[in-house]
Formats: sequence, C-alpha cells, structure tokens
Amino acid sequence: MTETVPLQSASQKPRRGRPRGAPDASEARQKLIRAGLEHLTEKGYFSVGIDEILKAAGVPKGSFYHYFHGKADFGLALVAAYNAYFTTQIERAFLDEEHAPLDRLRIFTARAEERMARHGFRRGCLVGNLGQEMGALPDEFRAALTAVLEDWQARTARLLSLALAQGTIVPHHAPADLAETFWIGWEGAVLRAKLELRPDPLRRFADTFLRLIEIEATNT
Amino acid sequence: MTETVPLQSASQKPRRGRPRGAPDASEARQKLIRAGLEHLTEKGYFSVGIDEILKAAGVPKGSFYHYFHGKADFGLALVAAYNAYFTTQIERAFLDEEHAPLDRLRIFTARAEERMARHGFRRGCLVGNLGQEMGALPDEFRAALTAVLEDWQARTARLLSLALAQGTIVPHHAPADLAETFWIGWEGAVLRAKLELRPDPLRRFADTFLRLIEIEATNT
Repeated sequence: MTETVPLQSASQKPRRGRPRGAPDASEARQKLIRAGLEHLTEKGYFSVGIDEILKAAGVPKGSFYHYFHGKADFGLALVAAYNAYFTTQIERAFLDEEHAPLDRLRIFTARAEERMARHGFRRGCLVGNLGQEMGALPDEFRAALTAVLEDWQARTARLLSLALAQGTIVPHHAPADLAETFWIGWEGAVLRAKLELRPDPLRRFADTFLRLIEIEATNT
Repeated sequence: MTETVPLQSASQKPRRGRPRGAPDASEARQKLIRAGLEHLTEKGYFSVGIDEILKAAGVPKGSFYHYFHGKADFGLALVAAYNAYFTTQIERAFLDEEHAPLDRLRIFTARAEERMARHGFRRGCLVGNLGQEMGALPDEFRAALTAVLEDWQARTARLLSLALAQGTIVPHHAPADLAETFWIGWEGAVLRAKLELRPDPLRRFADTFLRLIEIEATNT
C-alpha cells in the first residue's frame, strides 16, 4: 500500500502502433512507470503534469504517447503496476508460514512503515491518493481502484480466516469484515502518516486494531 | 468530517485593503467559502481552479482577491470554515446527554453518512482530501490540518473517557489512543465511501470499531 518502485510493470496490454516484435515492457516504458509511481504516490494525480514525468524519466514525449493514450491511460497503467508490485509485498508477508497469522499482518505493517520511512513518509499509497481524487478522475478509475482494494482485502480475509481457525482472533466478526475494516483504516493511516511525516499513525492503527481483534495466547 | 456548507465561516482574520467598518463575513466572502467547500470536498484542491469557484459563487475575481491573497490562503480559510462547521456537528452528537457515550458516537457516524448521502457520496472530508494532497500543498497546510484532526480526536477522547468511566468500553486501551484510531479509520472510510459512491465503508468501519471496543451491557 505504501509507495515504491515496482520490479516490473503490469498492465501490458497491446497498444496501437507498437512495432510487431518490439518488447512491450521496454526500458522507456519502465522508466515512465517508475517516475510516475514516484511522483503520484507523493503528490497525487492532478498536481503532477506529464512534462514533469517525462523530465524525471528522461524520456521524450513521443515515447510517452507510443505507450499511453494520455494521462488517464498512464494513470491506469500505474495502478496496475502498483498493484502487481504491492501484491508481491502482501503475499511475501501473508504466506510466510514461519510466523503465526496475526504476526504476518504485523510484519506486513512494519515493512510498509519501513518503505514509507525510506522516503521520509512523503510517499503514500497510489490507490489511496487516486481514491481521494476520484471526484475529478475519469470514471474508469473507480472500478480499477475498487478491484485492487477488494483483492488486497480478500488476501487479508484468508489470513484472518487462518487466525480464526487457530483461535487467535475474536470469533464474533467475519474475517472478510475485519479485513475490510483493516484496509479502510490502513489507508487512513497512510494518509495521516503522509500528512504528519511520521510513522505514528501507522503504528497507532496497526497496534490498536491488532490488539482489539487478538485473543492472547495462554497455552500455545 | 463529511462535507456540507457551513452556516457561517470561521477564519475571519483581518485582511489588508478591507475598508474600515466593512463587515468581514460579507455576502461575497460567504459565497466564495460555500462554493469552495462544495468543490473541494468533491474534487480536492489541485483539480479545482479559482475561476471555477468564482463562476459557481457568482463573484468577480476582484472580490476574491479582496478577501484572499490567493488559492492557498483561500484553502486555509476553507479549512477554518470547515472545522468551525464540523465541530458543531461533533459537539451536537457528543454532548447530547440523552444518549450513552457510545451511542453518541454511533449517532455521529450515522448523521455523517446522511450528509454524504445527500450528495450521492461524491463529497468527502475537506481535511482528508487536503491531507492526501499534502505532498504538493504549501507546508502551512500541514499544521492546520493536523491541528484540526487533533482537536476532533481530543473531543472524541473525552467522550470515550466517559464510556470508560461507565464501564462500557474495553479497559486496556487509552481513550486517546482509541480516539486517534477512530479518526484514522474514519477518514479512510470517508475516502472509500467516496470511491465506491455508497455508505457501506462508513457502516463497516463504524460497526466493526464500535463492536470491538464495546462491552455489552448485561445489567444496566
């Protein structure tokens, strides 16, 4: 959920005008995606111009329009790339059987904090940023952003189901409901950490949420 | 936390060039504040231009610069006006002794949902919107937005202290920590409701949070 540069971009649907046989995820496209993620996770969509992205990426305008129809198309490609990168971060923590389920969620939030710290808490979540700007974004962003959040929630619900089966979380809440509550709050925490330029809101939300749902182990 | 038009504006510090004796909260200024709140709670700061505000308010550009030094100054006046309005909403719910403390928080969230519903969930929280855009906003917004959130949290902490004293919430969390967690999550919920154009995220967060902290009354 927090920023950072994806190892490889997703969203590699074919584009008109690309030479047959040319690699889709070219170096120029990768540079544009990387610069886009860096700028939009910090400043959002509307305060960043294409020219700023081109300059940061060191890529000419012609290349941009070779890969993207325009800013909205670029923004949607950023969402896909961000999701691909971020899903690997989620899975790396959530599927790590070395740790108990709730500890995996704890580790996930701690690593997200580390990533935000690397950039002085100036970069937030691309999905949260764009979600906040949805009132002015093209409507196709709505489905894309909602789908990403629902996917992260589904992965979290599976993790919490495991915790429930092991008797380590309170039994009166469906894992899917807790997972949705976690992501609603975590996006709020990232927003707040970016506002305050410090980790405290991330820690506060993660600690309080986890302590509220956890049943202390007494005999395991 | 959710949008809406303030009954009267705050932030009435004297401005250079205002005729002595002229009313500070003039009709033109009020119209500008009202239009600004309507537009910025929906679309954020950077996607809305001054011309759009002037047109919506039916006020000439000269009047705008009579009251505000520029867009940033206007934005800060909107934060003050929003806070003044919103604080009355919080107090109306939180100080209503007809209801138990947790019920007052429940009522507050239900009314916030009603206000968002009036605008099809297209308008969110000005403070959340600007917080998300903080990476590109003038730095003086940071202190202003943080102060507003901390004030809302302090009011909420007082309410939760009352609940704690009455034994209706779990005892292992400081009211101030729970209040901070509530506001972190509630801002996330408003963001998400605006993204999905429906009340579900507000209800999910409020219901889950309240059920997690509440101790069911058995003999009261």
